[in-house]
Amino acid sequence: MSKGERTREAILGHALDLASVVGLEGLSIGALASHSGLSKSGLFAHFGSKEALQLATLKAASNAFVAEVMAPARAKPQGVERLRAIFENWLAWTERHDGGCLFVTAAVELDDRSGPARDYLVGMQRSWLSALARQATHAARQGELRADLDGEQFAFEMYGIYLGYHNARRLQRDPDAQRRARIAFDALLQNYR
Amino acid sequence: MSKGERTREAILGHALDLASVVGLEGLSIGALASHSGLSKSGLFAHFGSKEALQLATLKAASNAFVAEVMAPARAKPQGVERLRAIFENWLAWTERHDGGCLFVTAAVELDDRSGPARDYLVGMQRSWLSALARQATHAARQGELRADLDGEQFAFEMYGIYLGYHNARRLQRDPDAQRRARIAFDALLQNYR
Repeated sequence: MSKGERTREAILGHALDLASVVGLEGLSIGALASHSGLSKSGLFAHFGSKEALQLATLKAASNAFVAEVMAPARAKPQGVERLRAIFENWLAWTERHDGGCLFVTAAVELDDRSGPARDYLVGMQRSWLSALARQATHAARQGELRADLDGEQFAFEMYGIYLGYHNARRLQRDPDAQRRARIAFDALLQNYR
Repeated sequence: MSKGERTREAILGHALDLASVVGLEGLSIGALASHSGLSKSGLFAHFGSKEALQLATLKAASNAFVAEVMAPARAKPQGVERLRAIFENWLAWTERHDGGCLFVTAAVELDDRSGPARDYLVGMQRSWLSALARQATHAARQGELRADLDGEQFAFEMYGIYLGYHNARRLQRDPDAQRRARIAFDALLQNYR
């Protein structure tokens, strides 16, 4: 990694922290300058525009998500065990970032818009849902889940549990959110057994 | 209703439409003036500040939600039948508003903030979750759902299904979102039977 790349990486770390609190719309070059202590002109040199900064931040969040949620779960055998690891890493990911999951915030910010940031988020979320569906289908092929399981339906329901958890944890500040999410996820696995 | 009250009501109708698309943060006096064709000074006379306008819009959304989702379901017998009616009205509520459900947008906008709008939203959502929990508990007492049912857990899971539906419908523009949500809700009822 060149010095320029390392600097960009460090800036995107700040951008991710900031965006998870203020949202993608709140992530302007000016706001990032105040948050990171870097100069506006330096940030402009790196990103060129607010839109480019938002897109780069979504991409950085996506890399972080793969590294923190998906990659460590690959150490587990495919199927239910890996699904459980993914679910736990996903909860931990939310706890680790001050403002919760940037993708949840970005989803409601971008759902009425068009443009590269929305397209990127939709594509990223589709890949994520497909990865969950594939893992559930694999579990079904191994006999851990029902043979007639609809993987996409499983992924839809797992995503819903996560969103319910995110809301309970972030808006309601419910200390029981993790426990409730685990009960719901166990019930989902049970239902498709 | 006095003429002043009717005017205020009509303005809040515009505010609700606008906020469901641009979010609560995008709902400024200036944006509402452009959207509604009313003068900024007239809107200031009604609301006084952006914060007061946001709070009044949340309250108007809350009244609309009760009228469109909760009230019509009261025609159904308490228990599972009423829960089903609530669920269907809730999906229809989302379809009826251009930008989807304002509360979903507001929840991620306000989860890192403090102030009257957040307090109001948290209180409103708690009442809603309690109403769902009470209805599930009632169904359990009637023998339609398991006697040892945890009403709050039921409400948490029902809310998650709704959020998953909202995401699939609004961000993914998934034509299957309603069908998937109904399958998930049936599975929830089945699981607690």
